[in-house]
Amino acid sequence: MDKDIIDSVKNFRENRNWSQFHNPKDLAISISLEASELLENFQWSGKDLHAEKKRQQIKEELADVLIYSIMMADTMDFELSEIISEKLKINNQKYPVEKAFGKKDKYTEL
Amino acid sequence: MDKDIIDSVKNFRENRNWSQFHNPKDLAISISLEASELLENFQWSGKDLHAEKKRQQIKEELADVLIYSIMMADTMDFELSEIISEKLKINNQKYPVEKAFGKKDKYTEL
Amino acid sequence: MDKDIIDSVKNFRENRNWSQFHNPKDLAISISLEASELLENFQWSGKDLHAEKKRQQIKEELADVLIYSIMMADTMDFELSEIISEKLKINNQKYPVEKAFGKKDKYTEL
Amino acid sequence: MDKDIIDSVKNFRENRNWSQFHNPKDLAISISLEASELLENFQWSGKDLHAEKKRQQIKEELADVLIYSIMMADTMDFELSEIISEKLKINNQKYPVEKAFGKKDKYTEL
Repeated sequence: MDKDIIDSVKNFRENRNWSQFHNPKDLAISISLEASELLENFQWSGKDLHAEKKRQQIKEELADVLIYSIMMADTMDFELSEIISEKLKINNQKYPVEKAFGKKDKYTEL
Repeated sequence: MDKDIIDSVKNFRENRNWSQFHNPKDLAISISLEASELLENFQWSGKDLHAEKKRQQIKEELADVLIYSIMMADTMDFELSEIISEKLKINNQKYPVEKAFGKKDKYTEL
Repeated sequence: MDKDIIDSVKNFRENRNWSQFHNPKDLAISISLEASELLENFQWSGKDLHAEKKRQQIKEELADVLIYSIMMADTMDFELSEIISEKLKINNQKYPVEKAFGKKDKYTEL
Repeated sequence: MDKDIIDSVKNFRENRNWSQFHNPKDLAISISLEASELLENFQWSGKDLHAEKKRQQIKEELADVLIYSIMMADTMDFELSEIISEKLKINNQKYPVEKAFGKKDKYTEL
């Protein structure tokens, strides 16, 4: 996801003068709501873990999660690549390869 | 967010051999769970919409939402910039500037 | 769930003088957070739709969803049995037996 | 919420032969989705913590959270009053009155 895409998300918001509504609390609510719309594609899918027929909706809802996350990073003045690489370092300590390899346990149970 | 960051997220997962657990349904659940951990920073904040004291936790949880979203895009074989720009086109039709400018209404109510 | 239980939930809150924090927005956030803690028991469970080993945690998190829902109903001055039976009437029209029998489709697709 | 209401929820499900789809994992997903629909009424409300104009929608979505919670308790063979009073005992130890009175901190920070 390069700078152009991040700028196009920012422009989408600015063109509509929406920053006035985009406080951190309501953005966090919005990311959670979009994540639910993504998850809704798997409601009642049972053991079908792929929901192939919903591929287009899954694509669109995942994009909405990313769009609001980019807006929140912008509102909070976070740099995307920076916060991701910082968190990967933290997760790397929580889940060291030698302990976490091939395990799905939470770090508290490793 | 450039290719290097996306690769570092993929490597983090491959190094732990976690792709075997990362089916779309459980990834969608995981994105929703991380979005809730982000939102938890605003629980009981009332009219304080910024939760300044939680800035570090907000940064880390937002990063986790992005990390799982990158993993899901990889699992689904979606290209991040592509799905975001496609969705911005759709949102652009749902929320035309002339109708949506300065309004927070859902497109169904515009 | 009888009146005694509802009263014990109200008393739990009153004894801690927590109503001052329990505005509708933060209660809605809290119900969503507890629902995620319930869902977390199924993260990475794949095709295991029962997570039998998590039965105790599932029990506790489902109870928390109910406890916050009772608190929100109290805060909003809703009567539980009343709002449930009203909603069942609405769902009954959205999902008429003859159309919805044995189908998992959303009412918009029936 | 008395036995009649719980029975009417169970009957609603049985009349549609929906138990076949109601595995614990998809019910946990559904409770989370309904909790998000409840929360959606407060999206972009900013410092308005009551969303008075949405009272009817809030009532209906809170009812859906309760309806799915009753269905999940039935599927898991939990007795509602029992799991709530058990959890209140646990919360009582996590949040002793003398420590938690008038405080909104999480028990881990009390």
